[in-house]
Amino acid sequence: MAIRIFITGGTFDKEYNELTGELFFKDSHLHEMLKLGRCKINVEIRTLMMIDSLLMTDADRELIARHCETAVEEKIIITHGTDTMTDTAKMLAEKIKNKTIVITGAMIPYKFGSSDGLFNLGSALAFVQALPAGVYIAMNGKYFHAGNVRKNKQTGEFEELVKL
Amino acid sequence: MAIRIFITGGTFDKEYNELTGELFFKDSHLHEMLKLGRCKINVEIRTLMMIDSLLMTDADRELIARHCETAVEEKIIITHGTDTMTDTAKMLAEKIKNKTIVITGAMIPYKFGSSDGLFNLGSALAFVQALPAGVYIAMNGKYFHAGNVRKNKQTGEFEELVKL
Amino acid sequence: MAIRIFITGGTFDKEYNELTGELFFKDSHLHEMLKLGRCKINVEIRTLMMIDSLLMTDADRELIARHCETAVEEKIIITHGTDTMTDTAKMLAEKIKNKTIVITGAMIPYKFGSSDGLFNLGSALAFVQALPAGVYIAMNGKYFHAGNVRKNKQTGEFEELVKL
Amino acid sequence: MAIRIFITGGTFDKEYNELTGELFFKDSHLHEMLKLGRCKINVEIRTLMMIDSLLMTDADRELIARHCETAVEEKIIITHGTDTMTDTAKMLAEKIKNKTIVITGAMIPYKFGSSDGLFNLGSALAFVQALPAGVYIAMNGKYFHAGNVRKNKQTGEFEELVKL
Repeated sequence: MAIRIFITGGTFDKEYNELTGELFFKDSHLHEMLKLGRCKINVEIRTLMMIDSLLMTDADRELIARHCETAVEEKIIITHGTDTMTDTAKMLAEKIKNKTIVITGAMIPYKFGSSDGLFNLGSALAFVQALPAGVYIAMNGKYFHAGNVRKNKQTGEFEELVKL
Repeated sequence: MAIRIFITGGTFDKEYNELTGELFFKDSHLHEMLKLGRCKINVEIRTLMMIDSLLMTDADRELIARHCETAVEEKIIITHGTDTMTDTAKMLAEKIKNKTIVITGAMIPYKFGSSDGLFNLGSALAFVQALPAGVYIAMNGKYFHAGNVRKNKQTGEFEELVKL
Repeated sequence: MAIRIFITGGTFDKEYNELTGELFFKDSHLHEMLKLGRCKINVEIRTLMMIDSLLMTDADRELIARHCETAVEEKIIITHGTDTMTDTAKMLAEKIKNKTIVITGAMIPYKFGSSDGLFNLGSALAFVQALPAGVYIAMNGKYFHAGNVRKNKQTGEFEELVKL
Repeated sequence: MAIRIFITGGTFDKEYNELTGELFFKDSHLHEMLKLGRCKINVEIRTLMMIDSLLMTDADRELIARHCETAVEEKIIITHGTDTMTDTAKMLAEKIKNKTIVITGAMIPYKFGSSDGLFNLGSALAFVQALPAGVYIAMNGKYFHAGNVRKNKQTGEFEELVKL
């Protein structure tokens, strides 16, 4: 069973520029992370964009949706900034019905040592294999249904809108 | 949904004794790892033993089985040394039919920086939530059914006996 | 031989705020770093300020100088942002003649895993013990005399103005 | 000023073999560590052996001494297992009078995340530049004169025999 991973950027892949002291995107760390996890799943990785999710436009989301639709894989993971991943999830849930799509991200860049990224990637890969068709967010060790989840800005945690 | 985690030791929790140069068990790193993963699942953690799985006896496995049976939770994760986790899985599958049990471990101790432990824990937590009742091993980003999995001693990877 | 360490902030001690995505100062990591280095030197640590060195004012530098003068220790380390540490070194060299003062910092925050901070701290502690009275900068494994050093903005490296 | 670094093995360079669960030597991490420290000193690195210092023979020590004598550099660092580095220091001090030689090591392998190796390397590089001719051990942030130092087996710390 092949799994498609689409990379869109977000905290996950940010790095520290030691000359300017700013955070920036260089390359994705997905390959490195999968290697660290000794992951032997057949995955196809493609970078769609490398942006902060606060800067993601409707056109960007259209692009993501189109790639999800046309991918031959029925199981898709999207790495995404946490600030607007619930928006992308909701949009995708309206358009795509017959695939299992799991969106995940990180609160701390993978390169910063104390990141939740590796944990989240492990959980997203497991959820996408085991959950039925639908669009989900995988954060905090949990999965949430698209449309029934928000990021709590005070705590940084993801919460259900309506308890299922 | 509460999840029970039983700790039995294994590479996962080994540390380096800087006075003797030997590997040993002190405390489990599970709490630290769940915190790193910003995991907000309701988990109950209990250490059953802290041993190398090559030293695990039939009596030890009986103890694990009894704890799985009597636990009020229907979803159980067991952290376990990789060398004999397939044996424990097989034994548990014969005894326990109505719970989802996921056994996981690590090839490199969590404390050694390059560990697969955090990735495996994320995947085990996701699998235990999403898979139906049964006994599974979660390694290499995959899940395997008890009785249909072996550890390849040459590569260190887990493989299905019969392709499903 | 007691060594005084004055903390002023800089990249060294920056952390990532996972709620805002910004870098900020919380506490110094000096104690943690000294413990990691199994450092058994008798050190007295005091935080004078926690600022980005681009924001350091003349008044701040006066404060640092006064503390260096009044400290009972003859060997002093100052952790400092790299952008203006050469300015602080020059000012201190004009005022303080009879002590060994070593200024160091980091290009990457200690908490980000790939930091030069621990290496620089080890070198600063060694230089302050072994060099004669004077004001020095310890970066890139080297020591530089105050007044004869600049930070190359293109490479991030420290260089002598005049080869000694 | 060029510095010669001789590698002899020791905990410093040990790695974890995930197939056997044993510690072993592969390659030295010196280049990686110097890069992490943004070290810009002109160093020449040569691996003389890769052994546990408890296994170091008189012939091995002869080899180290000969390399120290014939090296064109007057400043030499030796990475060495901590268990017998005081023996090697004493032997070298009897043979070599006109060079600054600093022996260092680590209590925890560099690859294990919590290592003192990077701190010790930074301090050894600084001591070798700033100390007069002689043979020294650099551990715990301190330097010790060859012949006046022992490793305390209970604490893992290095101590002077006679307080200087």
